[in-house]
Amino acid sequence: MDSSEFRKRGKDMVDYIADYLEQIESRQVFPDVEPGYLRPLIPDAAPEEGETFQAIMQDVERVIMPGVTHWHNPYFFAYFPTANSFPAMLADMLSGAVGCIGFSWAASPACTELETVMLDWLGKMIGLPEHFLAGSKGEGGGVIQGTASEATLMALLAARTKVTRALQLENPELTEAEIISRMVAYSSDQAHSSVERAGLISGVKMKKIPSDENYAAQGQALKTALEEDKANGLIPVFLCATLGTTASCAFDNLMELGPMCNAENIWLHIDAAYAGSAFICPEFRYLMKGVEPSADQVPSSDSLSPEWPDEDLICVLMWKQVKKRSDLIGAFKMDPVYLQYDQQESGLITDYRHWQIPLGRRFRSLKLWFVFRMYGIKGLQEHIRKHVSLAHEFMDYVKQDNRFEICAPVILGLVCFRLKGSNELNKALLHKINNTHCRTGCGTFKCIESKKQRNEKLSTFAWAFAILKGV
Amino acid sequence: MDSSEFRKRGKDMVDYIADYLEQIESRQVFPDVEPGYLRPLIPDAAPEEGETFQAIMQDVERVIMPGVTHWHNPYFFAYFPTANSFPAMLADMLSGAVGCIGFSWAASPACTELETVMLDWLGKMIGLPEHFLAGSKGEGGGVIQGTASEATLMALLAARTKVTRALQLENPELTEAEIISRMVAYSSDQAHSSVERAGLISGVKMKKIPSDENYAAQGQALKTALEEDKANGLIPVFLCATLGTTASCAFDNLMELGPMCNAENIWLHIDAAYAGSAFICPEFRYLMKGVEPSADQVPSSDSLSPEWPDEDLICVLMWKQVKKRSDLIGAFKMDPVYLQYDQQESGLITDYRHWQIPLGRRFRSLKLWFVFRMYGIKGLQEHIRKHVSLAHEFMDYVKQDNRFEICAPVILGLVCFRLKGSNELNKALLHKINNTHCRTGCGTFKCIESKKQRNEKLSTFAWAFAILKGV
Repeated sequence: MDSSEFRKRGKDMVDYIADYLEQIESRQVFPDVEPGYLRPLIPDAAPEEGETFQAIMQDVERVIMPGVTHWHNPYFFAYFPTANSFPAMLADMLSGAVGCIGFSWAASPACTELETVMLDWLGKMIGLPEHFLAGSKGEGGGVIQGTASEATLMALLAARTKVTRALQLENPELTEAEIISRMVAYSSDQAHSSVERAGLISGVKMKKIPSDENYAAQGQALKTALEEDKANGLIPVFLCATLGTTASCAFDNLMELGPMCNAENIWLHIDAAYAGSAFICPEFRYLMKGVEPSADQVPSSDSLSPEWPDEDLICVLMWKQVKKRSDLIGAFKMDPVYLQYDQQESGLITDYRHWQIPLGRRFRSLKLWFVFRMYGIKGLQEHIRKHVSLAHEFMDYVKQDNRFEICAPVILGLVCFRLKGSNELNKALLHKINNTHCRTGCGTFKCIESKKQRNEKLSTFAWAFAILKGV
Repeated sequence: MDSSEFRKRGKDMVDYIADYLEQIESRQVFPDVEPGYLRPLIPDAAPEEGETFQAIMQDVERVIMPGVTHWHNPYFFAYFPTANSFPAMLADMLSGAVGCIGFSWAASPACTELETVMLDWLGKMIGLPEHFLAGSKGEGGGVIQGTASEATLMALLAARTKVTRALQLENPELTEAEIISRMVAYSSDQAHSSVERAGLISGVKMKKIPSDENYAAQGQALKTALEEDKANGLIPVFLCATLGTTASCAFDNLMELGPMCNAENIWLHIDAAYAGSAFICPEFRYLMKGVEPSADQVPSSDSLSPEWPDEDLICVLMWKQVKKRSDLIGAFKMDPVYLQYDQQESGLITDYRHWQIPLGRRFRSLKLWFVFRMYGIKGLQEHIRKHVSLAHEFMDYVKQDNRFEICAPVILGLVCFRLKGSNELNKALLHKINNTHCRTGCGTFKCIESKKQRNEKLSTFAWAFAILKGV
């Protein structure tokens, strides 16, 4: 395929994508396929000779689409919204074409520098304290991590290294293994599974502290755990607090946890994968109270990572606060001869490979740049506000039916509800909903549906509630 | 931006990309910018109101392109070829549009199943032994890792877990930390920096065994290290052998190392990030001798990861051999309630989240599918063969000038050469080359250049040699 054929096929693909997203409501959200469905549909080996683009696109409809879970179908309610967007897709095309591997500044200066500035833009947009920003002096600063799992792992590894080095400085005879075996890290019992996994990977004991009746971690629970662990000779090194937990969008109490971490010299990492983007709206920033410096001017959090909802998977952001940037990048810094370059010695350089697990990286900041500029701050705020108001609208539907109860505070876009009664009853409801392949005109439930309503997602909520009512 | 605007802007972007790649030779390979160049060129905060696509594209040329290192410029010789391709870009557009997050089979069955089958296709293409393939029984199987760094880390973590569990079964009083503190892993002193980094992350001591005069690790060096370490009470758990080292494309001796790993119950991971794709050509498969089962039918390698050259960064492949798949996926398996689904219980399911560090993942196998089908095996073989023959052609240029010497065997696409004389002299040459921003018509050196020749890359080699001659 040469560039002139790409011009044609690329435009065909743009039309295919636009058609797909325009008509996505007519596709069944969750496919009917059984495990192993795909293998018999295609040859068991790659072809010897090249095939045409048309042949492949026919197979996209025949082989792929029947097995796709359509995350952007407005009737998709599982997990969380991934929400790609047209500006992000355009930027991603450009990123793929440039194809630079930005592991160091020299590998593509624009790739590194745009990322640093975009993370500052976003830091300002969500009201992060100044010391999290890189600014022109490059003291704090953010990085795009591949996923929230990697952000948490990277923060825990950095904390592990920091404490190990400090203790070995005091007592050079201590081995790393001895020190790590005495370390303990914390999260609430509501933290995402990736936090526990980070503990397993790093070899640091991860202890779950009990959350309160609203599923949030409070200072007292941490205090109890700290006292017990210190009495047993353990070294507390890390706390992962969550803003917007996976299960119920609970907010750990940073105002209590932060000062305790400061006092104990514990690295406080804030997992804001879900709630972080809502802080674009000033009215939600009360939810991150405690991120900012406390009264004695000691910043209470060491790192923070929200996920950017409009950017699909490959955009999780992570900031380090001022003067502690070196704790993160110093953890596993390596400079083999084949990655060195002249400008490195200026001291002004950011090499993002030191901030992450992988070496290479895509030009992901282009997606942020396109999205921020094409929507503007106001457009992004509207997006968040609409979703929060829709959640409250849905909550009202649920409250109107006294068979149901709301079982966690509705704060942002998540509504946790259940049938009053046993867990078994609720499991049966869940099973029924998950196995209802309702789509336009399926007749199982009455779907209130019109193209015009799609953007409002009103039809979606009405439909969801129709399922509930139909149980 | 709605879908009708996306139709227009997407097509504009396709044309921009085609123009960019058609004219890439006219752009300076490495930019002239200084660290910090970008920040003053754009506002210091995101705009309040949305901007137009045109405004952003103007800034792409004004702000981004002057700071891009053009990896696909034929005059780019640094690092390694990333080589995107038009079919891969088309597939990536589709992947972005589908936007599924394939952390489990249910999250998008097609995403998981196409990956399993594509890794089988590729396994067959490069002549991997049967037990590395998933087949319809799903015993072995491959996964697309984000980067080679993650593949190595994942293999090391799996080996660490496997040995820990086995020893704790024998002696339940041993703590994980005690066991890990006694572990030792190996690579040659030529292994990529990410291997050493995997050691730091996992907390497992990583020992570099000396390579021979051709920069390859031989059995004797491993034997010496094993004897010494076992005498000191250490537990050897892991060896990362490399096929095609970063510095000189050396090949560790699998025929010697493999049986030793088997005998000692050491996990043998093969990093074939560079050389792996060459095995598509049968004439290069002698270089991976030792991957196949040895005479006593014990497979000598546990995992293997080549990087796929035509797929840009986000496609590193990793296979696990038959019956040991569970060693990899069992290392950090987690099934929180919000990731469970009905079909999971069938036992036929692959959930790729257990095979990798992150939870989420893009629909990356679409890129393999498009590339394999549009080029066909023959097209891919031609591509590899052309690059290998060009390297030999360049080697001949170097040999014609007796100021230079070839300093490592030329096997695939890498030619290592130096000026006869001191390292200082060679450093000066390197500096001079890196600071020669030669491009069409720059006049610094005579560039033999024509569009027709571009695909042959002949001009490139002649140009590179012209620089050498001009020193």
